[in-house]
Amino acid sequence: MNSPLNLAVLGSTGSIGRQTLDVIRQFPDRLRVKAMAAGNNLPEFQQQVSEFKPEYVSCLNPDFQPGNLKCLSPVEMAAHPVIDIVVIALPGGAGLAPALAAARAGKIIALSNKECLVAAGDLIMAEAKKYGAQIRPVDSEHSAIWQCLVGETSPPEKLLLTASGGPFRTFTLDQIAAVTPEQALAHPSWKMGRKVTIDSATLLNKGLEVIEAHRLYGLDYDRIEVVIHPQSIVHSMVEFADGAIKAQLSPPDMRLPIQYAFSYPERWGNDNLPRADWSKISQLDFAPPDYQRFPCLKLAIEAGKKGNTYPAVLAAAGEEAVNRFLAGRIGFGDIARLIQQSLEEHNPTGTPSLDSIAAAEHWARQKVTELTRSL
Amino acid sequence: MNSPLNLAVLGSTGSIGRQTLDVIRQFPDRLRVKAMAAGNNLPEFQQQVSEFKPEYVSCLNPDFQPGNLKCLSPVEMAAHPVIDIVVIALPGGAGLAPALAAARAGKIIALSNKECLVAAGDLIMAEAKKYGAQIRPVDSEHSAIWQCLVGETSPPEKLLLTASGGPFRTFTLDQIAAVTPEQALAHPSWKMGRKVTIDSATLLNKGLEVIEAHRLYGLDYDRIEVVIHPQSIVHSMVEFADGAIKAQLSPPDMRLPIQYAFSYPERWGNDNLPRADWSKISQLDFAPPDYQRFPCLKLAIEAGKKGNTYPAVLAAAGEEAVNRFLAGRIGFGDIARLIQQSLEEHNPTGTPSLDSIAAAEHWARQKVTELTRSL
Repeated sequence: MNSPLNLAVLGSTGSIGRQTLDVIRQFPDRLRVKAMAAGNNLPEFQQQVSEFKPEYVSCLNPDFQPGNLKCLSPVEMAAHPVIDIVVIALPGGAGLAPALAAARAGKIIALSNKECLVAAGDLIMAEAKKYGAQIRPVDSEHSAIWQCLVGETSPPEKLLLTASGGPFRTFTLDQIAAVTPEQALAHPSWKMGRKVTIDSATLLNKGLEVIEAHRLYGLDYDRIEVVIHPQSIVHSMVEFADGAIKAQLSPPDMRLPIQYAFSYPERWGNDNLPRADWSKISQLDFAPPDYQRFPCLKLAIEAGKKGNTYPAVLAAAGEEAVNRFLAGRIGFGDIARLIQQSLEEHNPTGTPSLDSIAAAEHWARQKVTELTRSL
Repeated sequence: MNSPLNLAVLGSTGSIGRQTLDVIRQFPDRLRVKAMAAGNNLPEFQQQVSEFKPEYVSCLNPDFQPGNLKCLSPVEMAAHPVIDIVVIALPGGAGLAPALAAARAGKIIALSNKECLVAAGDLIMAEAKKYGAQIRPVDSEHSAIWQCLVGETSPPEKLLLTASGGPFRTFTLDQIAAVTPEQALAHPSWKMGRKVTIDSATLLNKGLEVIEAHRLYGLDYDRIEVVIHPQSIVHSMVEFADGAIKAQLSPPDMRLPIQYAFSYPERWGNDNLPRADWSKISQLDFAPPDYQRFPCLKLAIEAGKKGNTYPAVLAAAGEEAVNRFLAGRIGFGDIARLIQQSLEEHNPTGTPSLDSIAAAEHWARQKVTELTRSL
């Protein structure tokens, strides 16, 4: 047995953070939480800290009492010499600075935050390459692709990203327009945060994942295909030059891609992870996506193809629009409309940098605010 | 570009042999036929020889005129120093001696012949290990498993061998008993030889493959599961300790596993190989096998578990029974009955050797002859 891997878990009280700790709990000899950062959920963070006993902590809630633990910012944690793996499960733009710090410190980065790769993927991938950092995707689709690529020496020809299709897969255009936040939050397969759940319903999430796949695996957009697969058992597939396709399957559970980001290239036995029962899986369905009923998917792929700061605008406008939808201020169909208009009005300035990305995000958030007023 | 691989194609006029040559035809810079052996199909062999221009030939037909080509036996070809890869596509017991010779010469063995591994798998695997030979499976299921294992550093927990279920998948017991050779030869998915096609219909083929999988990958029989999958698109799956399953998929075409046995670990582009179209694959079905309607599957797994010369008896009795069924001398249901009775009456003698295996096969063939008379 090697010495345990020292982890920094950034975003420990979110959905991915909690599931990360659930995985860590199973492997006390292999994984150790050295640093832990959370947002405002103080009671849960205090419970986590007392259970996992990190050395370094960070909590945005001003009532947090670190006691004799050392306070470090997420960026400091990400770059700290003692840390082997940085789990980035912080929401939205909050993941970007720690991800860059971890990349520059040459860490293994278990990356759950989508916006990092979507908005600043070129920068992060370049820094990771430069400093020898490894980015290990923590979501079911990109982990599936990664697992399918393991040991293959020839480049893939096509990535087939599966999508559950969300709860409104069979809805008409009119039905989709009338969807409420309550309906949209009832995702059939995955246990996820509220933002991701809405993005799954609009398929914006899948669009963001197409951009991520492009960043992670370097394939052109016309080699990344979305396949609707309602059962969420095939998590994605890779096609090779000889026509062979490899797929990764399992009952939907985020703890598998989380654990694989720690265990790679090994596989660790974990009785908490569900097993597929092939006497019960009688049918797997597949269908092409419908861009008309789910325009966010097309908008995302177009933003990805345009590159520059368009993906940053897509992600920021999407976040703002979803927040307004969850607050009951706009309709479900308005999410795509606000994103589309923001993308249409966006003027990127020169080569993208952290500054221009931040400026584009700021512009997009203001644009959505402005557009919402005139709805 | 490396220098081309020198191949010995043993069994060039059979179904796998012809498809092997079809693959080789696509890669004149990578693959070269140095030696070629066939049975009685003289016109086709002569045409193949004139197209591929091997240096060494072998033909069982006494009218064959080698001209200025050198005649070698399949065993001599398999061990010849110039040969890099030996393709063993000879039928039944004819593959065994060349396979052993190739193993002892440390060759790469592209093994299509089932009986080698079924009857003498322990011996062949031991010799291959001893002399550093590589056995590369040339059938869709074991190739799929191999592809899924590439790059994995932890042992698999379970192999999921898919089976089309054959043309009588939905037949009742009574309907199955009345099946004719013509019905059984009309396999829905695969282009195969007559013997394999009947074995697919009885599921004996899948049972032989379970034994092969046990030999190739060393997993206990209770970790090898057969899953009926009528579309024959998922060619097999592997489950790991973390519950992750990897599957290999493609439209059914034997040229893919043949080519992969040559290209491994690379993937070679081949426009002749079919591509999956996910706008058309709308459904993949799975079901557990029915041992009552398809007793050959259970008989095979039991013979595998008993080990020793039982698998040899299974394979030889199966071959004899199928020949009699194809000749119209016994009914479809009699195939299982003859195999079962042969296995029940078999008495293995000591540790299995080539001699005891040959004796057991001879005994099984005589037993089937004797049993057929009393039907």
